[in-house]
Amino acid sequence: MDVGFIGLGRMGANMARRLFRSGHRVVVYNRTVEKARELAAEGAEAAATIPELVAALPAPRVVFTMVPAGDATEAQVAELLADLSPGDVIVDGGNANWKDSVRRHAACAEKGIGFVDAGVSGGIWGLANGYAIMAGGEPAAVALAEPAFRSLAPEGGYLHVGGPGAGHYVKMIHNGIEYGLMQAYAEGFEIMHAGPYPLDLAAIAEMWMHGSVVRSWLLELAVRALRPDQDLRDIRGWVADSGEGRWTVQEALDRDVPAPVITLALQARLRSRQDESYGAKLLAALRNEFGGHAVKTE
Amino acid sequence: MDVGFIGLGRMGANMARRLFRSGHRVVVYNRTVEKARELAAEGAEAAATIPELVAALPAPRVVFTMVPAGDATEAQVAELLADLSPGDVIVDGGNANWKDSVRRHAACAEKGIGFVDAGVSGGIWGLANGYAIMAGGEPAAVALAEPAFRSLAPEGGYLHVGGPGAGHYVKMIHNGIEYGLMQAYAEGFEIMHAGPYPLDLAAIAEMWMHGSVVRSWLLELAVRALRPDQDLRDIRGWVADSGEGRWTVQEALDRDVPAPVITLALQARLRSRQDESYGAKLLAALRNEFGGHAVKTE
Repeated sequence: MDVGFIGLGRMGANMARRLFRSGHRVVVYNRTVEKARELAAEGAEAAATIPELVAALPAPRVVFTMVPAGDATEAQVAELLADLSPGDVIVDGGNANWKDSVRRHAACAEKGIGFVDAGVSGGIWGLANGYAIMAGGEPAAVALAEPAFRSLAPEGGYLHVGGPGAGHYVKMIHNGIEYGLMQAYAEGFEIMHAGPYPLDLAAIAEMWMHGSVVRSWLLELAVRALRPDQDLRDIRGWVADSGEGRWTVQEALDRDVPAPVITLALQARLRSRQDESYGAKLLAALRNEFGGHAVKTE
Repeated sequence: MDVGFIGLGRMGANMARRLFRSGHRVVVYNRTVEKARELAAEGAEAAATIPELVAALPAPRVVFTMVPAGDATEAQVAELLADLSPGDVIVDGGNANWKDSVRRHAACAEKGIGFVDAGVSGGIWGLANGYAIMAGGEPAAVALAEPAFRSLAPEGGYLHVGGPGAGHYVKMIHNGIEYGLMQAYAEGFEIMHAGPYPLDLAAIAEMWMHGSVVRSWLLELAVRALRPDQDLRDIRGWVADSGEGRWTVQEALDRDVPAPVITLALQARLRSRQDESYGAKLLAALRNEFGGHAVKTE
């Protein structure tokens, strides 16, 4: 099929590659034009502007956007709405908040333009392994984009999970779970690292991949992370979060569902980004106040 | 090789099966003799007593015990110590506390008998898929049991992780991680179940197995659990714990390592076993005391 593709960052560029390598005609656009030219050299067609991209596609058009969630996606969808025609479909493959996607779907529907929120998982390994695609939206719009989804996903890795917003909703929960899984491994390996035995942590992780209950793709990545230096001396314990974790925690609150592990996994990331903790300072000060316990001063 | 095998419960019987199906000569003993007879009909040799089992094996003997951790294992090792000879090796494949295994290793060493603590993972699927085996002990003792370990494990799933106790130590952490992983999935699926979309949770779990970041063997089991009835109406939310989770939490405390997610995953299981929570009752009572908030009475 013909696909427009906007946003050639780490995820987007590889998704576009997977599409044209699967035989689709992919017209790419990126704000910094170099990346589009790079992909054009590999098999895509580069458009210099959004109107040029739209003009290069036969109707009904399918245009993927893979730009950062929030303002960038908001602006991109608004710009596309101005240029696209009724019957065309926008696919947002970014990590947008599902409530924003519900709203964008409604805005698109007013102009007769379809909107598909597609949760995309797979990271930098998706180019080789394929991406898990969770699509939300009206059946007709999703159907139009489906040949692209099937090429992006490995066998069995694509599902139309529900109506408008459902794709990003399921992706949000997916990432919340991911936070908890990663933190569980992190804690287990930290205990072993601090423990009484001189253990080969990479070898243990590798062995666990064969027959153990905790085998997973994240554990496979842990093997890669631990193998060069299991003390991780070159890595700082500073962990970003990109939104879905906190939205999952918020959604758990909104639904009155206890989610202690996902919540704490997020908060462990917040703590990892503090050089000093005001709360810990206050704890130390309080211990001093009531018990005269020693306080470390700066 | 010749292997003695004591304890034919759910795990033990399948491990013994995997051993004799791999061509080893397996002499089995079980307190209730029917299970031993059952395995004898399939290819093992049944011994009616421990001395009979010992007499049926050529020296140096390798005897696996797969009996419950704690008193049963303590008694079994003591009994074997009385019957075995210097140079023989006891393999404890149960989920013993690693500190008990260190102690048992020393008790065995005094009599010249080898002791191997083998963490075994794989559950009821191990018969078909193989078991991950984490062995701890002196190299000579481990070497004697190694042909059996290699048959129990799938390719790459066996590792001699360290000295006495290290096998059960690594298995303990493995299970602690498992608690955290399971709780993360549990929370994510509960939020989706309570959420705004009518989602096919089994189909989503199945799709996540293909290309997503959260794919794992536990997720594969979640597909099986969710497929017959995603509301899980026939399952009570009552979750046992068998020791390794709490030992992992204790070990984290002993090493001053924060492990909030594993700790809370354990505590979620404790909460799951309470019909009523005294703490929640007190919270309700306190809200009433200071704010006159409504209290639900029995």
